[in-house]
Amino acid sequence: MRDKRRRIVILGGGFGGVYTAKYLHSLFSSEEVEICLVNRDNYMTFQPMLAEVIGDALGVYDTVSALSSLLPKTSLYINEIEKIDLDNKKVFLICPFKKQHIVLEYNELVLALGNSTDFIHLHNGVAQHALRFKNLSDTLILRNHIINVFQAASTETNPQLRQALLTFVIGGAGFTGTEVAAEVCDFLNKMLKKIPSIKKEELRVFLVHSKDIILNELSPSLGRYAMELLRKKGVTLKMGMKVEAVTPHHAVLSNHEKIASKTVISTAPANLNLVLAATKGLPVSHDRIKTLPNLQVEGYDHVWALGDAAHIPLSNGHFAPPTAQFAVREANTLAKNIAAKYSQRPLKPFQFKPLGLLAALGHRKAVGELFGFIKISGFLAWIMWRAIYWSKMPGLSRKLKVLFTWILDLFIPSEPVVLNINSRKVMHHLHYKASEMVFDQGDLADFLYIILKGRVAIIKKFQNEGEKIIKELAAGNFFGEIALTKDITRTAKVVCLESTDLIAIPKDEFLVMKDSFLELDTFLTAVQAERLEELNKFKKSS
Amino acid sequence: MRDKRRRIVILGGGFGGVYTAKYLHSLFSSEEVEICLVNRDNYMTFQPMLAEVIGDALGVYDTVSALSSLLPKTSLYINEIEKIDLDNKKVFLICPFKKQHIVLEYNELVLALGNSTDFIHLHNGVAQHALRFKNLSDTLILRNHIINVFQAASTETNPQLRQALLTFVIGGAGFTGTEVAAEVCDFLNKMLKKIPSIKKEELRVFLVHSKDIILNELSPSLGRYAMELLRKKGVTLKMGMKVEAVTPHHAVLSNHEKIASKTVISTAPANLNLVLAATKGLPVSHDRIKTLPNLQVEGYDHVWALGDAAHIPLSNGHFAPPTAQFAVREANTLAKNIAAKYSQRPLKPFQFKPLGLLAALGHRKAVGELFGFIKISGFLAWIMWRAIYWSKMPGLSRKLKVLFTWILDLFIPSEPVVLNINSRKVMHHLHYKASEMVFDQGDLADFLYIILKGRVAIIKKFQNEGEKIIKELAAGNFFGEIALTKDITRTAKVVCLESTDLIAIPKDEFLVMKDSFLELDTFLTAVQAERLEELNKFKKSS
Repeated sequence: MRDKRRRIVILGGGFGGVYTAKYLHSLFSSEEVEICLVNRDNYMTFQPMLAEVIGDALGVYDTVSALSSLLPKTSLYINEIEKIDLDNKKVFLICPFKKQHIVLEYNELVLALGNSTDFIHLHNGVAQHALRFKNLSDTLILRNHIINVFQAASTETNPQLRQALLTFVIGGAGFTGTEVAAEVCDFLNKMLKKIPSIKKEELRVFLVHSKDIILNELSPSLGRYAMELLRKKGVTLKMGMKVEAVTPHHAVLSNHEKIASKTVISTAPANLNLVLAATKGLPVSHDRIKTLPNLQVEGYDHVWALGDAAHIPLSNGHFAPPTAQFAVREANTLAKNIAAKYSQRPLKPFQFKPLGLLAALGHRKAVGELFGFIKISGFLAWIMWRAIYWSKMPGLSRKLKVLFTWILDLFIPSEPVVLNINSRKVMHHLHYKASEMVFDQGDLADFLYIILKGRVAIIKKFQNEGEKIIKELAAGNFFGEIALTKDITRTAKVVCLESTDLIAIPKDEFLVMKDSFLELDTFLTAVQAERLEELNKFKKSS
Repeated sequence: MRDKRRRIVILGGGFGGVYTAKYLHSLFSSEEVEICLVNRDNYMTFQPMLAEVIGDALGVYDTVSALSSLLPKTSLYINEIEKIDLDNKKVFLICPFKKQHIVLEYNELVLALGNSTDFIHLHNGVAQHALRFKNLSDTLILRNHIINVFQAASTETNPQLRQALLTFVIGGAGFTGTEVAAEVCDFLNKMLKKIPSIKKEELRVFLVHSKDIILNELSPSLGRYAMELLRKKGVTLKMGMKVEAVTPHHAVLSNHEKIASKTVISTAPANLNLVLAATKGLPVSHDRIKTLPNLQVEGYDHVWALGDAAHIPLSNGHFAPPTAQFAVREANTLAKNIAAKYSQRPLKPFQFKPLGLLAALGHRKAVGELFGFIKISGFLAWIMWRAIYWSKMPGLSRKLKVLFTWILDLFIPSEPVVLNINSRKVMHHLHYKASEMVFDQGDLADFLYIILKGRVAIIKKFQNEGEKIIKELAAGNFFGEIALTKDITRTAKVVCLESTDLIAIPKDEFLVMKDSFLELDTFLTAVQAERLEELNKFKKSS
C-alpha cells in the first residue's frame, strides 16, 4: 500500500505543528521523507491578534492563513482525530464524507495539538454558558453575541433584563482575559455610537481575577498600569476572586456575589487535549505531555511533543511556557533532533531565552517587557506590539492584507454585523443554581427539558390561592411536555431546588421526534395523562 | 403604554423594507410617526454581489450593511417574527433572551419579507441535502462546503468517492444559478493551484436547466453566449431537465440519470414566506401576497406589501418581477401612498420601466441588456455590471471598502479558509432513494436513525453464506442503536426499499439522552434485547 519513504505525522496545525513541518521540509527531501500534518481546520490561527477581530479592527480572515499556502509540500489531512494507537504506530482519522476511518501509519509522531477548552465535566455551568476565547470561531461567536445582546437591550423595556443584557463579565486577567476586556470595552463604545438608545452609563464590564494584580506574567508596575487603564475605560475590577459558576441568568463569584449577566467570558486555564487524554501510555504532568529536554516523549523514542501540549523541562529548572514564541523555537529543535536521530548524531536539548512579552490593551495602548528588564507602556508599546506581531504573521499576502485592513480601519468605521452561519437549533445543555427559575407559568413554551442532575419543583399559581408546589422531579425525569404538545403557554412554573443540569430539546425537534417515533409518543402520552390527573387531584384537594 | 404617534411597522430588511423606511423618514417627522423595522439579521444583504463572496473576490462583510447605519432614525427590532394578528393589528416577535413575546401594535403594516427557501415539505431530499443560495449565510456555507469536499478529495483513495467529492451539480440556470455556476468554476480553478494533488480533469460541474437556453430573463442570443462561455469554463450543461431528487449520494435528474455528487446547489424558485403563509386572511396568488396597483394588500387599507413577497399588477397586464430594481421603486410609491392616505390625497398606482438587466459570469465576464434593446457581453459588460451595482451599494463606507477589496484582489491571492462558526452537531434530516445504502456492516457507528417515511431492510452478511434480509422496518421505527450503545462498528447493513426520510441523531447526543432519560433507556434496552434474540434465532434457522 504505502511507498517506502519514512513518514513523519504531525498532529496539530498551530505554531508548533506548522513550524515543525516547515523546518522538516528544509532538512529532508520529499523523496526521503513524507511529512503529513493533521488538523481540524484547514488554516493556522494567528492567536496573538485574535482579539482585534472582536471590534472588527481586523477582518474575519485576517488572523488566519490557509495551511495549503503555508505548507505546499506537506500532505495535509483536514480531519478530526479519532484515536492514536501508539503500540501499532497508527493514527485514526474521521472523514465526514465516509463511514470508515482514514488510517495513517507513521515512523515518527509529533504531538502539537495544543490544549483544549472543551470541558469534559459539566459541573459549574462554565461549559454550558460561558463564552470561550481560543480560536477564530470563538471570536466570531463572541462578537455576534455582543452585538445580539446590545441589539436586544435597545428594545428591551424590562429594566432587570435590560441591565443583564448590558452587563459583561470576563473571568481571568492573564494575557487573554486582559486583552479581551480591553477590546470588548472599545467595541461597546463603538456600538454606542450606532445604537443611540443605549446610554454609556448602562454598560457594565467586570474583570474577575484571582490575584491582587492583573497580568501576572509581567512585573507588578505594568500590571498596575494596565489596571488603571482598564478602570479608565470603565472596567470594574473584581480582585482576589474567581467566577465560580455560570447560569443562564448569573455569573456567581467565589465570594457568593451574583452578577446578573447574559455574557460571561471565561479565559480559564485549559486542559489536556481530549485525544491525548484518551491515548493510553502517554506520560502526563500538569495536564501536559511529559517530554525529555530533547522533546522526545518520555518512554518513546519515536514520539515527540511540543507547544502548549508539552511539558518541556528547561535547563534552569523551569518548564517551557505555552507561548507562540517558544513553540516556534521548539519546532526548530524538534526537527533538527529528528534529523540527528536518522543520521545517528546525538540529540540536543531545547534551550531558548525569550525576547520579551507584550499585551495589547485595546485601542492604541499596550504594556510589555523586553529582554526581561525594559518596561514599556502606552502608545509606543502598542505600535511595537503591532509591528512585532505583524512581522511574525505567516505569508507575505496575509501581511499585506492586514496592513491594508489597518490603514482602512483608520478611515472607515466598521459595521456591527452579526455573522450567522448556522441557524439550526441544537440540543442545549443548561446549568442552574438553587432557586433559579427555568420558566414561569404563562411563558412561551420553547423546549422540553430532561434533568441530568439535581432537582426541580413544579409550582402552580392558583387564582386567589397563591403558589403551591405540585411535584418535585429529579435526575432522569423530564418536564415541559404539556405546553409543547398542546401548543399553549407554560401551565406551571419550574424552579431549581439545588444545582441542576438540564438538557433542553427545542420544540420543533421534539415534535418531529415525537410524531415519528411511535413508542416515544405512546410513552409521553401515558406520562402526560398521569400528570394531568395528578394536577386535577391537587386542585380538588387544595 | 404607547405614545400618541402613529406607528408604521415594516416587516423585512431587504431592499423593499429598507427603502420604504428611508422614504418614510423623508416624508414624516419623528414626532408624527414612529417607524419600526423588524428583521431577523441586523444587516441588509446586497444580494446582487453575493456570488463574489464564494471565491473571496469580496470579503465576508462586504456585501452587507448594518441596518443601524442605514436607518439611524428607525426603531429596529432584530427578532424573529412569531405571528401576525391582522384583526388586532399586532405583530408578535420572539426574543432569544426572554420567554415572553415582544408585541408591536401598528397603524400601518408593510410586508416586505421577501420569499422563503425554507422548504416545508420534505419530499425529494432537496430540503435535506441541497445547498441553497439566498443569503450571506448560505454563501459562506457553500464556500466552506466546496473547500471541505476539495480537501477531503485530496487525500481520498477510493476512486468513486473521490469522483463524487469533485462533482458539483447546480439546479436551475436563471440569474442566480448561472452566476453561481460561473463563480464555482472560477473558485475551483483557484483551489486547483492551492492543492496540486487534484487534477483539473477530475473536476465535473453540471448545470441543470428545464429550458433549452439558460438565462431566460434575457434574449436567446445572450443566453447562448453565456452557455458557450460556461462550456469553455468546463461546465456540462444538462438542458431540458430538472434536479428531481437529492440524496446523500446522488443528484437524481428528471430523465432518471443519477449523478454521484456530494455538492448539489438548488436555486429553485422560492415559496411564500412561512410567517405570511401562516397568517390568516392574507390573499395569496402565485405564492405571493396579492396587492392592488397602489400596493395595498387586497381587502385591507392599512396593510401594504412590496418586493419579492408581493404580487403587484402593472398597467401592462404583467406583474412586477422580484428584483431589487423594482423593490426600490415600489418602496418609493408605497411611502408616498401612505403619506397620501394620511393627508387624504388619492393613492397612485405603481409604475416603472426597468433600465436593464445584467448577469455576471464569473471572472471578468458578464452579459446583459439595457433599455430593452442594447445587448452587451464580455469584459465591457462585466465592468458595467460592477460599476452599476457598486454605485447602488448602500452607504459610502461600504462603497469604499468594496473598492479597496477589489483593488487588493487584483494583487493578493485569496486563501481558501473554511470559516466554521458552529461546530455543534445537530439532528440531521436525510432523504434516500430506493436501493441506496444508509450504512454498511463494519462501518463506523455515528448516528441513531428514526424512520419518518419509507421502509428499510436490515441486511446481515454471514461468512460463506452471503447476505440475508433479517428484518424490515417502516415509519416510526428506529435502527442503529446496537452499535452505538455497545461502541462497536455496525453489525448489519441498512438499505432503503423505497424513497425514505430519516432523522439521524448524533451518537454523543443520543448517549447523553439515553443515559439521562431513564424511561428511554429502559425502553431501548428492551427493544435491543428483542432484536438480538431475533438475530440469534435467524442465525440458527438459516
